[in-house]
Amino acid sequence: MLQPPAVALGVHLDVLVSHPKDAAAQVIPTHQVAAASDSTALTQLANRSTVLTFEHEHVPNAELDDLIAAGCQVHPQPHALLHAQNKLIMRQALSAQGYPCPEWVKATNLAEIQAFWQAHQERIVVKAATGGYDGKGVLMVTDAADLVTAGDWVERLGEVLLEEAVDYTRELAVLIARSPSGEARAWPVVESIQINGVCAEVIAPAPNLSAETATKITAQALALAADLDVTGVLAVEGFETADGRFLVNELAMRPHNSGHWTIDGATTSQFEQHLRAVLDLPLGDTSATAPWTVMVNVLGGPCPDQYAQYAAVMAADPAVKVHMYGKAVHPGRKIGHVTVSGPDLAAVRDRAHAAAALLKGAPHDDH
Amino acid sequence: MLQPPAVALGVHLDVLVSHPKDAAAQVIPTHQVAAASDSTALTQLANRSTVLTFEHEHVPNAELDDLIAAGCQVHPQPHALLHAQNKLIMRQALSAQGYPCPEWVKATNLAEIQAFWQAHQERIVVKAATGGYDGKGVLMVTDAADLVTAGDWVERLGEVLLEEAVDYTRELAVLIARSPSGEARAWPVVESIQINGVCAEVIAPAPNLSAETATKITAQALALAADLDVTGVLAVEGFETADGRFLVNELAMRPHNSGHWTIDGATTSQFEQHLRAVLDLPLGDTSATAPWTVMVNVLGGPCPDQYAQYAAVMAADPAVKVHMYGKAVHPGRKIGHVTVSGPDLAAVRDRAHAAAALLKGAPHDDH
Repeated sequence: MLQPPAVALGVHLDVLVSHPKDAAAQVIPTHQVAAASDSTALTQLANRSTVLTFEHEHVPNAELDDLIAAGCQVHPQPHALLHAQNKLIMRQALSAQGYPCPEWVKATNLAEIQAFWQAHQERIVVKAATGGYDGKGVLMVTDAADLVTAGDWVERLGEVLLEEAVDYTRELAVLIARSPSGEARAWPVVESIQINGVCAEVIAPAPNLSAETATKITAQALALAADLDVTGVLAVEGFETADGRFLVNELAMRPHNSGHWTIDGATTSQFEQHLRAVLDLPLGDTSATAPWTVMVNVLGGPCPDQYAQYAAVMAADPAVKVHMYGKAVHPGRKIGHVTVSGPDLAAVRDRAHAAAALLKGAPHDDH
Repeated sequence: MLQPPAVALGVHLDVLVSHPKDAAAQVIPTHQVAAASDSTALTQLANRSTVLTFEHEHVPNAELDDLIAAGCQVHPQPHALLHAQNKLIMRQALSAQGYPCPEWVKATNLAEIQAFWQAHQERIVVKAATGGYDGKGVLMVTDAADLVTAGDWVERLGEVLLEEAVDYTRELAVLIARSPSGEARAWPVVESIQINGVCAEVIAPAPNLSAETATKITAQALALAADLDVTGVLAVEGFETADGRFLVNELAMRPHNSGHWTIDGATTSQFEQHLRAVLDLPLGDTSATAPWTVMVNVLGGPCPDQYAQYAAVMAADPAVKVHMYGKAVHPGRKIGHVTVSGPDLAAVRDRAHAAAALLKGAPHDDH
């Protein structure tokens, strides 16, 4: 998704892909098949590029530090990226700097897990420090059987992050971009709706959010980005609680699912902004271009060729924006998204869900 | 510019380029260096594609007819395309079907040119039937010296098109798309401002155009597309006269400069719509997404590296959309465009001109 704004700006992309059929390889002429951990390929890529950036956080920090020492531009830099790679390091940094988090501790054995569990009404979340995504690496512990599983996790991983299970009213996310010179801009705060730990829907802006709260959350994310020296796009996902607090849940340092709505719904998309930020160009206007924009993810469904559904989707709603990622269809896999904008939130949500359901090849469930 | 919507829709582009450094070759992985007239390359391309389409009109109709006879999908088809390739054939078809045109005749010798010239207050336009673009192939004849040049043209070309020099108040353009199944949609009518025969600026929608006139012009373009069996995008450029007529000047059967504003200013861009049309998918909503959108072309200027101007342009106006085509900079060559949207036309125009002037590396002239 970086390629469309790169085409518009005349920015030449050159990319490492893990497989010749990867989505990026299908649309970017200059690509090389190599793992992100292949230090020879990474060094060659850095040497022929103005700046090196990433679309996931699974990158080898030691090699990146060497490249920076050798004079290469790398954004975000490992000292920032670390906070998106390791949840324990993220919690330590955020708590040290006073950002509101769920209660948390590090545990290295079952006894510590059990103690934290009993202290929190036998309802806690156990997280692997690294490697988790889309609900993977996260375990809700509410009974004795879960506790046994948590014990297996800590034995296997050596250490885990324990968090109180926050009694939240909804999940919010704030997306910002920051450039190496320190310019930063935020998009409107959004509501994200998760199903089984996977982002299903994003509503921009978050409905019924007071201007005061939105301003506070946004200022917090901008300060956090400066404190951690983030460059490029940063997504801060968190919980809104009944008593009006916003607790940080996760950080992502790259264009993020919670910002896909910006492609069709904001003056500058998160992908264009990421390019501008890592190239240290002035950042673009982040205003929404419609009163409401709703993004619904398209998951792989029973229909093996979801492209065959295009005619039905486009005929049903000529204003829906369809984005498919060129991935093979596996049930439950994120293979695309749809966006709808308009003046009436209920209608916009309904149209976005209907389009996503049509693409999946399934009847439209009421959300 | 077809690549960004192709990426979004997961449509795989495969393209013949005339040179390995062509703009399309820079951003489309599957490309082959071959002339559009290379019938072997064209046949191979058609055989490995769902549909064959064009970004210019200089294509070999006989070969295309053969491909269609062999079962390939080609859009637009030669019997339609002919009217965008040959201005005499276009005038004959339009006049035969009653579409309003400037007064015109075909001339095959100087005497015929002189007679038409004298009958039209010694002020006429001579056009080469084929091969013209951006003011090339067009000669204004207002004195005896021009008449000598016109004589050279008709001797060299065998035949030319003569037209009255229309006393127009402004130039308007209407852009539509039509699919093989006959579905058609039009974008709002725009005003286009030409300098030395080259499109300089497009204002969407055309200011001070009555709804009645807009509806009439749009209906005319839709009828014309059906009559000529156009598939894909059709641009109808014409003259608005003081007595309220709209006279067709030129036809283009491809995404067109007068529609570049749709990338940032309409729900469906002309490039996405062209893909949908030639693939016979349902067409997208063509509504404008802002009260006013202004597009200004960026011509090659004194600055050999106009990308170096990005920081200045983006810092001056964070909401301007910059599109650069990856072409080498030659003075006067169209190398990109900028788009600005907003509620106040004067401000939007001023910002678009300022951005284009900054990109050119020249001081901002008042327009």
